[in-house]
Amino acid sequence: MATIDLNSDLGENAPDRVVADDAAMLGIVSSANVACGFHAGTPEGIRTTLADAVANGVTIGAHPGYRDYEGFGRRAMDIDSATLQAHVEYQLGALLGLTAAVGGAVRYVKPHGALYNTIARDERQARDVVAAVKAIDPSLVLLGLAGGVVLDVAEKAGLATAAEAFADRAYTPGGELVSRAEPGAVLHDADAVAARMLRLAREGVVEAIDGTDVAVRADSICVHGDSDGAIRMAAAIRELFEAEGMVIAPFAGAAA
Amino acid sequence: MATIDLNSDLGENAPDRVVADDAAMLGIVSSANVACGFHAGTPEGIRTTLADAVANGVTIGAHPGYRDYEGFGRRAMDIDSATLQAHVEYQLGALLGLTAAVGGAVRYVKPHGALYNTIARDERQARDVVAAVKAIDPSLVLLGLAGGVVLDVAEKAGLATAAEAFADRAYTPGGELVSRAEPGAVLHDADAVAARMLRLAREGVVEAIDGTDVAVRADSICVHGDSDGAIRMAAAIRELFEAEGMVIAPFAGAAA
Amino acid sequence: MATIDLNSDLGENAPDRVVADDAAMLGIVSSANVACGFHAGTPEGIRTTLADAVANGVTIGAHPGYRDYEGFGRRAMDIDSATLQAHVEYQLGALLGLTAAVGGAVRYVKPHGALYNTIARDERQARDVVAAVKAIDPSLVLLGLAGGVVLDVAEKAGLATAAEAFADRAYTPGGELVSRAEPGAVLHDADAVAARMLRLAREGVVEAIDGTDVAVRADSICVHGDSDGAIRMAAAIRELFEAEGMVIAPFAGAAA
Amino acid sequence: MATIDLNSDLGENAPDRVVADDAAMLGIVSSANVACGFHAGTPEGIRTTLADAVANGVTIGAHPGYRDYEGFGRRAMDIDSATLQAHVEYQLGALLGLTAAVGGAVRYVKPHGALYNTIARDERQARDVVAAVKAIDPSLVLLGLAGGVVLDVAEKAGLATAAEAFADRAYTPGGELVSRAEPGAVLHDADAVAARMLRLAREGVVEAIDGTDVAVRADSICVHGDSDGAIRMAAAIRELFEAEGMVIAPFAGAAA
Repeated sequence: MATIDLNSDLGENAPDRVVADDAAMLGIVSSANVACGFHAGTPEGIRTTLADAVANGVTIGAHPGYRDYEGFGRRAMDIDSATLQAHVEYQLGALLGLTAAVGGAVRYVKPHGALYNTIARDERQARDVVAAVKAIDPSLVLLGLAGGVVLDVAEKAGLATAAEAFADRAYTPGGELVSRAEPGAVLHDADAVAARMLRLAREGVVEAIDGTDVAVRADSICVHGDSDGAIRMAAAIRELFEAEGMVIAPFAGAAA
Repeated sequence: MATIDLNSDLGENAPDRVVADDAAMLGIVSSANVACGFHAGTPEGIRTTLADAVANGVTIGAHPGYRDYEGFGRRAMDIDSATLQAHVEYQLGALLGLTAAVGGAVRYVKPHGALYNTIARDERQARDVVAAVKAIDPSLVLLGLAGGVVLDVAEKAGLATAAEAFADRAYTPGGELVSRAEPGAVLHDADAVAARMLRLAREGVVEAIDGTDVAVRADSICVHGDSDGAIRMAAAIRELFEAEGMVIAPFAGAAA
Repeated sequence: MATIDLNSDLGENAPDRVVADDAAMLGIVSSANVACGFHAGTPEGIRTTLADAVANGVTIGAHPGYRDYEGFGRRAMDIDSATLQAHVEYQLGALLGLTAAVGGAVRYVKPHGALYNTIARDERQARDVVAAVKAIDPSLVLLGLAGGVVLDVAEKAGLATAAEAFADRAYTPGGELVSRAEPGAVLHDADAVAARMLRLAREGVVEAIDGTDVAVRADSICVHGDSDGAIRMAAAIRELFEAEGMVIAPFAGAAA
Repeated sequence: MATIDLNSDLGENAPDRVVADDAAMLGIVSSANVACGFHAGTPEGIRTTLADAVANGVTIGAHPGYRDYEGFGRRAMDIDSATLQAHVEYQLGALLGLTAAVGGAVRYVKPHGALYNTIARDERQARDVVAAVKAIDPSLVLLGLAGGVVLDVAEKAGLATAAEAFADRAYTPGGELVSRAEPGAVLHDADAVAARMLRLAREGVVEAIDGTDVAVRADSICVHGDSDGAIRMAAAIRELFEAEGMVIAPFAGAAA
């Protein structure tokens, strides 16, 4: 029986700024990427989400980003290696602390937003992030974009890695995400997305935007927590997977 | 042969905002209270100070404050218990992470500024801070104001504690700090301060502002890192102590 | 024909943190209290809301708050007068600048959140806010809680004032807001609220939580922009008012 | 009799983070570039510096930077035009407000740090800054690096401009600043710097790092407020200039 992980970005809420229904999503996913406070989230809100993840048996990952709270970590930043490494170590330490305080453990690291995108192609920043993860806990798994540079860098440095696909995004024939600026880049039909992800989980293949099939490595499928219809789409995927006999569970190395 | 600890607040520098000569102070003190980023400091600057502390064999303590970077943690804040506890846990986690990354270990916690003052008399906030310390690592020692409420709260909760005196501050006949608003509250003569601290270390007594003697518990003596003449005063204390055969070393429970 | 103002708190959105539908609300209200960046909002988002307000002919007010972005300006702060006055002047200056840049003009000031509540009863902070408003532009009207201390302070200082009622809140027999901690404090039935506000606009009276009638001064009615059903409730009020021949227009002194 | 302006970056202090002696520098310079809160400064500290500038008859300029308080505005940022323009408008508005509150007026704009450097060569960001200045007050003079792109952009847009030289920096034979990474880039001898600036003020020429002479346009000379010996160097320049009969006064268009 095939197994796949479902992950979502959580812990990004703040007082009067609720951007996702964390409690609902924690009933659907197997892994939670929890904000570390630099791009979003507050210590007490993050702690609540972590406690709920523990209560739901959901695996916890750290979701560090650039220090850009105003811009939600979406702005690219050209920061030097010493600063970037320390920023990631600081965030990982904080999340490990809060997670321990609620009786859980952090199993993996998935960088956020502009940092996620940058280390998928920039080797220098990828090395900085990997150095930070190793310095904090070398047993943490690095979860990143399928095909991204950071996965190679992490493996060479001795970290375990996992690759993810995006449920609501179109792919190019080369296996890359279609830019959000292109028409058709973001998918909205929950049932079609669920069927698409089922095929990816079973066959390792998705239909690219031009109608051809493309292989995509996917140890985990990301369902967004903060877009319209996010809960509905995540639930549709889970329901279809369960109906089809897929086991939704954390990827290798990340199980509690 | 008597032993006493010298501590100083460090890690509070930032690019273009150098407020203390951390490298010099790390050659004098036995314990460093290192900022955790909420009231001062940056992850990379904190990391540099931590690495220097490790290199100098100086014991490391966490120095968490209110989330008030603009006001340097000097503003009193009436925040609820869940928020305060999570804020302290977040900061302790971050500092433990950065310290582990440079090969060191955090041994104690000394809250900063307005938080330090508040928990010396406010039992509710004192309990929140103690709960955070216990949740992160119950072997951490709580360093606080001699006579402060937080020391009682910490001991009842099972934490080890240490009390500190302030080298450059006058005391009331009741053993409290003279308010900075009063004349004579802050002492500036390095040699007089050194002699005063020697007596405190040996006899547990200082001369109060009215000329009477008062007993003050002092497991550690705080020398400020960010005031004028701070390095000179700290050095004068160390020199006199060494000349008089005092051992300057971390307080009980905080040695590496 | 009777006239009444409808105001709403806008400009509080940020990238990935959309808390209100400003465009929709600007089609309903006559006055927009626009965030100034300290408790919420970003310069470019505020600017967009200001431009939309100008395009809709909606009167613009400044909505300054405490410097508490993380807590959305909900935390009480005990800051000194020089700091508070400068914080308000800074925010007013920034909003006047952005408003001028889009071809509009700021007509009034309505403080936000914890600052709003504090100056309704704390005369010292009320004076600080009033001093800031006068220093920036003495022709600005001060919009505050009906019966609040700040209205008296402002009038004595020579500022014009306006009082507001809250559409979705219950009142005590003494004319104060029922605390949110009490059952029944927040009203959810759009039609009932609309009828209630019509009576207030016509007769200056609302039914208090104990069933008695109480007089409330209301030059303006606040409809929240960030609560569930906010747009629906605001629209219901507007529709009923228009059907009943009320003119919805800015309060005296605030019209463009 | 020749006239030259001396300017310095001020208003960058914060509680417990005093980086420059603003009061002393305001007794020496003719123009003060006052921080606007994004890269440094607090509203109340900025206000104090502005009031002191008014009391000293020093001309006031706005000194806006990137929104990078942690990094003191030294980090390059690739932000879109709408955001950058709104960030500059927000800062200018805030400074105009605070300045009006203390009875003064802002006469010019000198961008700070990484923003200053970027708009000296990046036309897109230069246009964004110029658009912001025009939107706030088209009578403001744009003060920038001699030879920088932003001066051309500003002039084409109809703004008056002024060019500045740096007292403590070496120049290339091509008239550019020698990079701080190069040996000899920063000058430390106050008397030599004063003599060098006197020649620049009289002849429009400085000796480049290779010993050749190079012409540099300088309507103003920047003396840093936050480097070691800054006050001494600024005083040396003023003394020499006065002894040699130079008039130290704001550049054209910036006088009160």
